[in-house]
Amino acid sequence: MSNNPAGHTDKWPNLAGQMPTPTAEQVSGNIENYIGMAQVPVGITGPLKVNGKYAKGEFRVPLATTEGALVASYSRGIKAVSLSGGVTSHCLKEGVQRSPFFGFESVLEAEEFSDWAVENLPVFQEITASASRFAKLRSVRPNIEGNSAILTFEYYTGDAAGQNMVTICTDRICHWILDHSPVKIDVWYIESNYSGDKKATALSFTNGRGRKVTSEVTIPKEIVQNVLKSSTANMVKYWRSSTLAVTQSGAIGAQGHVANGLTALFIACGQDVACISESSIGITRMEALPNGDLYASLTLPSLIVGTVGGGTHLPTQRECLEILDSYGPGKANQLAEICCATALAGELSIAAALAEDHFTTAHENLGRK
Amino acid sequence: MSNNPAGHTDKWPNLAGQMPTPTAEQVSGNIENYIGMAQVPVGITGPLKVNGKYAKGEFRVPLATTEGALVASYSRGIKAVSLSGGVTSHCLKEGVQRSPFFGFESVLEAEEFSDWAVENLPVFQEITASASRFAKLRSVRPNIEGNSAILTFEYYTGDAAGQNMVTICTDRICHWILDHSPVKIDVWYIESNYSGDKKATALSFTNGRGRKVTSEVTIPKEIVQNVLKSSTANMVKYWRSSTLAVTQSGAIGAQGHVANGLTALFIACGQDVACISESSIGITRMEALPNGDLYASLTLPSLIVGTVGGGTHLPTQRECLEILDSYGPGKANQLAEICCATALAGELSIAAALAEDHFTTAHENLGRK
Amino acid sequence: MSNNPAGHTDKWPNLAGQMPTPTAEQVSGNIENYIGMAQVPVGITGPLKVNGKYAKGEFRVPLATTEGALVASYSRGIKAVSLSGGVTSHCLKEGVQRSPFFGFESVLEAEEFSDWAVENLPVFQEITASASRFAKLRSVRPNIEGNSAILTFEYYTGDAAGQNMVTICTDRICHWILDHSPVKIDVWYIESNYSGDKKATALSFTNGRGRKVTSEVTIPKEIVQNVLKSSTANMVKYWRSSTLAVTQSGAIGAQGHVANGLTALFIACGQDVACISESSIGITRMEALPNGDLYASLTLPSLIVGTVGGGTHLPTQRECLEILDSYGPGKANQLAEICCATALAGELSIAAALAEDHFTTAHENLGRK
Amino acid sequence: MSNNPAGHTDKWPNLAGQMPTPTAEQVSGNIENYIGMAQVPVGITGPLKVNGKYAKGEFRVPLATTEGALVASYSRGIKAVSLSGGVTSHCLKEGVQRSPFFGFESVLEAEEFSDWAVENLPVFQEITASASRFAKLRSVRPNIEGNSAILTFEYYTGDAAGQNMVTICTDRICHWILDHSPVKIDVWYIESNYSGDKKATALSFTNGRGRKVTSEVTIPKEIVQNVLKSSTANMVKYWRSSTLAVTQSGAIGAQGHVANGLTALFIACGQDVACISESSIGITRMEALPNGDLYASLTLPSLIVGTVGGGTHLPTQRECLEILDSYGPGKANQLAEICCATALAGELSIAAALAEDHFTTAHENLGRK
Repeated sequence: MSNNPAGHTDKWPNLAGQMPTPTAEQVSGNIENYIGMAQVPVGITGPLKVNGKYAKGEFRVPLATTEGALVASYSRGIKAVSLSGGVTSHCLKEGVQRSPFFGFESVLEAEEFSDWAVENLPVFQEITASASRFAKLRSVRPNIEGNSAILTFEYYTGDAAGQNMVTICTDRICHWILDHSPVKIDVWYIESNYSGDKKATALSFTNGRGRKVTSEVTIPKEIVQNVLKSSTANMVKYWRSSTLAVTQSGAIGAQGHVANGLTALFIACGQDVACISESSIGITRMEALPNGDLYASLTLPSLIVGTVGGGTHLPTQRECLEILDSYGPGKANQLAEICCATALAGELSIAAALAEDHFTTAHENLGRK
Repeated sequence: MSNNPAGHTDKWPNLAGQMPTPTAEQVSGNIENYIGMAQVPVGITGPLKVNGKYAKGEFRVPLATTEGALVASYSRGIKAVSLSGGVTSHCLKEGVQRSPFFGFESVLEAEEFSDWAVENLPVFQEITASASRFAKLRSVRPNIEGNSAILTFEYYTGDAAGQNMVTICTDRICHWILDHSPVKIDVWYIESNYSGDKKATALSFTNGRGRKVTSEVTIPKEIVQNVLKSSTANMVKYWRSSTLAVTQSGAIGAQGHVANGLTALFIACGQDVACISESSIGITRMEALPNGDLYASLTLPSLIVGTVGGGTHLPTQRECLEILDSYGPGKANQLAEICCATALAGELSIAAALAEDHFTTAHENLGRK
Repeated sequence: MSNNPAGHTDKWPNLAGQMPTPTAEQVSGNIENYIGMAQVPVGITGPLKVNGKYAKGEFRVPLATTEGALVASYSRGIKAVSLSGGVTSHCLKEGVQRSPFFGFESVLEAEEFSDWAVENLPVFQEITASASRFAKLRSVRPNIEGNSAILTFEYYTGDAAGQNMVTICTDRICHWILDHSPVKIDVWYIESNYSGDKKATALSFTNGRGRKVTSEVTIPKEIVQNVLKSSTANMVKYWRSSTLAVTQSGAIGAQGHVANGLTALFIACGQDVACISESSIGITRMEALPNGDLYASLTLPSLIVGTVGGGTHLPTQRECLEILDSYGPGKANQLAEICCATALAGELSIAAALAEDHFTTAHENLGRK
Repeated sequence: MSNNPAGHTDKWPNLAGQMPTPTAEQVSGNIENYIGMAQVPVGITGPLKVNGKYAKGEFRVPLATTEGALVASYSRGIKAVSLSGGVTSHCLKEGVQRSPFFGFESVLEAEEFSDWAVENLPVFQEITASASRFAKLRSVRPNIEGNSAILTFEYYTGDAAGQNMVTICTDRICHWILDHSPVKIDVWYIESNYSGDKKATALSFTNGRGRKVTSEVTIPKEIVQNVLKSSTANMVKYWRSSTLAVTQSGAIGAQGHVANGLTALFIACGQDVACISESSIGITRMEALPNGDLYASLTLPSLIVGTVGGGTHLPTQRECLEILDSYGPGKANQLAEICCATALAGELSIAAALAEDHFTTAHENLGRK
């Protein structure tokens, strides 16, 4: 029931349709009321050269999207950064939060409770260790509002995106708290809606979520000209005005279209696509260097990715992760660095297109007629 | 190469794997460097009863996700709202923006230009009419910053999501502007990065983007108890604290997990999934009525959906739209109303789970082990 | 009971303490439970050269503050811009909002009501004309959320800051609405808390509030060097990094310390100082021109000022407005342009101090020991 | 040259005009180019009963404003909370930040530098101890963006507002850093514009600034009715809709008119009034208790106050602080608790006025005709 798109059957058989449709059992844990598989076209880009702390080498990047021109645009950016020696991409920190809520009679009790909870971090860390092989509780921070307190627990979650893991660990901690609290807890919720889960929030820059990654590249002026079809001066000029414009729109952060590339990567690679809300927040920067080359960076402070768990084991998702050499344990930091590097390439490509008035033409030529 | 997930082969053959993998030609306009199809599990929910301006009836809602418990949670919410007589869901307005940038020598020129541009709305409307069969230019609003001006063009785009359409029309208008501007334009860009495209911005509430939809439902207290396993008082109490918590996180709007359901619907139905950034912004409200029933509403001010163009024609995407009776011309408002109704059901289900401490158990039972 | 600060008694007798303390009657309408006058030191800056649409000429700008170094810093900036030929400062638009709330049974009623209200703009304009000699109702825009609607009425308020005026006019309109609404109004409030009154909100950039003003100046590179003690390159470099930093802090807009100068002007001139919350939101821009000169602009989209009403008639307040030639009818646009020009001068001065590491020294020398 | 406003000459002679206008020498450190004193009417409210951690007792609260009805409105709220047994007001934490910027060649260097800086906290604390008798350095947190790093230093600043103190200490630290950094620093600035100084930012809720204070009160339903002229149900209903409305306006936090009372207190008491930008951010909450009483709380996470330094020593400012028993060392926490309690009283009063349609009438009767 398949054919051979672009002749890649042998290399990527699942994407090419050589796999049987998964059985309900095979997708249990991922879906309920299963009726089949949605199919989203995948384009391949790259090789993307990355000089990361974890991602080292050249990567073909699969992007799943239905939006014409997207893969072409990212391909052009990837070509530019790879010809320039590659993207330096660094995972800077990681941590996933769960923020339970506790209600009390009075602010005095909320304060007494918060002080007590902070002192019990070592107990909470023990509970975490017994509840999960992977999670490590890093900190607990209280946030009092009136007669209530939110406790934000931040965990290392290894190579999993980690939302379920932090839920379970926090649940165990909360039940210990319910048994031991020095003040009566009137009401509690495992998640207060403060953690930033599946939302764009200002927490991205102040506290992070998931992994914080910064990517940077210096593009020689010849490559700006020959590959991106622009000039350093024009790209910096566009970047400056786009940064002020997006600020006026009331956005969080200041970037171009990070959501485009990340969403396509997330769908292809079995990530939690709803997390694009927080993952696509970032800061893009472009500067002219004294020699006329272009310095560009992208910082993604709240990138939620995993290479184990979630949808990573499903047939095409696993195949896409394997294309990226990022399937399984020990690979999440690499995947994060590739994501940010890819998104930076996309930022360069769209800035060039907009700076030089190629944006409309590209969409007319490659988009749906 | 397929089997029969859940016995649904006959009803939804493409999802069940009975279709051949599309050829490169069949997906041209949607993807470049095509290598095959990513496959994402789809669960079916419903029937969801909607009493809309456009969506009237009962709808099975397909959700594509890899996150266990998501379909089950939405199913529970959908059961509760449907047993309650259904969701009233209303498309309130529509409009997609493109916001080109124009740079000048001075603020005087920026102001002269802006005044001139606003006066030429009828010309721009004529240009739009000749550039597109579907797009209708509704308004142009200037936004001056220093010696520059952003013009925000807002269009009706019919049943298409419309981003390409508004790009092309705005491009035609800008070229007319370049030829006719009374002041010299130093630099211009087809998109200033102000329009809110693929970003969470405060523009959602002040100006909207795509479609603005409000859904509401009254849940009898017995259904709150029997289906949602909570009480009106507890749900309202959770809603109040969650609204204050999310406000402190620096979110835009105040909702729970709208991104979860919308992303799953968008992937299933061939929507531009990167637009989840703006589409998932909303306001959820829950109130106790004097008789103890629960009133709940969800307002999504910037929902980007289409039932023609984009990925809607692809095999499984079209099939999912057809499940929703929302494929093709004349259906976008209906799809928008179903999206918002589905998301409201999800808001109710998660609020109940969090209010009653069922959230962790659900994820432990249904998520990936 | 006075002495002669800086020998200015004759020029500015009220500031110099030659006036009797006002009687309770003289301050009625401004204060209740009156016990006397708080006294805040005033420093004089300028002359500030402004080439405005309304403000034309050289102005001495009085600043009331208790923060050492503030007046000196603004003086330096004012010297730089005035030596450069002055600031071009343009009032771009004006409008003050009041946003009443209306609650209904259902979203259907909210929508019917909103449509009806928008159609009745001419009636509302008549009511406004009969309720106020000065206010002119410009528009009414609905914002539906669930079964409720906010109507935002925007007025021209002439030379008054206008909050009371728009309250009274909106009150009259709302009572007409209560009598004539085609659907039953369950509950209504004269202000929904949406209008942005006395708050920093994203509405500043999307819809404005009070007056929107843009100021710009080109500083020759010699003046950057000799007066600001910096260089164009260093100032632009600082501006770029400060813009990205403030974006990460979750600010609205991107500016330096506009609140400092505006607050000092507002206290001196009898403005509603609490409105500094919205008035100090802005966008500062700095660019190197090809010849090495520095282009700088500041846009304040929500500047609330008045030259009649409020505290403008009080003795020292009136005197300060008269120093600015901005007391009484016909002067509010001029005052707005002076405010923005002054704030721009302050942005330049602090950027230079920070770029060149003079900031700490200035505060050590001029601040409280 | 004075008279006797409201017969209070003997009690508060400076406010009543019995003091000579200060000489330039007396205001040195507060102002440059001194020309005299701006005079702002002061109204007295209270007694406000506060049951604080630091503020215990009944306080008359002086408010300096030119806006009619403001003092009357706060007086009504203060009466309601004091008759209800007083406001519980708690300083929860304190800390003032300075956030210098450091630029490097690459993200690698930025990361190496940040790691090194964090390890040197003990050195920085020693430097702080030698630079200031009062400041205590609490933490240093890095924030990397591309090839740059912001270090946020947070200090306890005792009873001073502390901005100058933290500038000087951070300057000393930065100079040590410049001498000892393991990587070459290309450029640095003492303030990156990230610290939230004189701006409304999301940092208020995530990290705080100055003092975080929560105030709460339970108002018996009879007092809601007799003093606030409303009902618990109506006030809670207004609060709910106002919270959703302000969220849609893109505000930071969710409160009513905190800026009004705080600005008036800040002007009266010699505070840095420009800090109203961050100080007025807050969360107001109102709830009906089972017995029909009204619970209300206000949390101000970034309140910048001082009882030494700044303008606190000036004649009327000192007098106003003395009215509050809050002049000099050891009083800043008390002042902070009074500020928040006053603001909570104001929130209650305006909510009642809006809930019962008394707002317009109050402004018509008490505002400027």
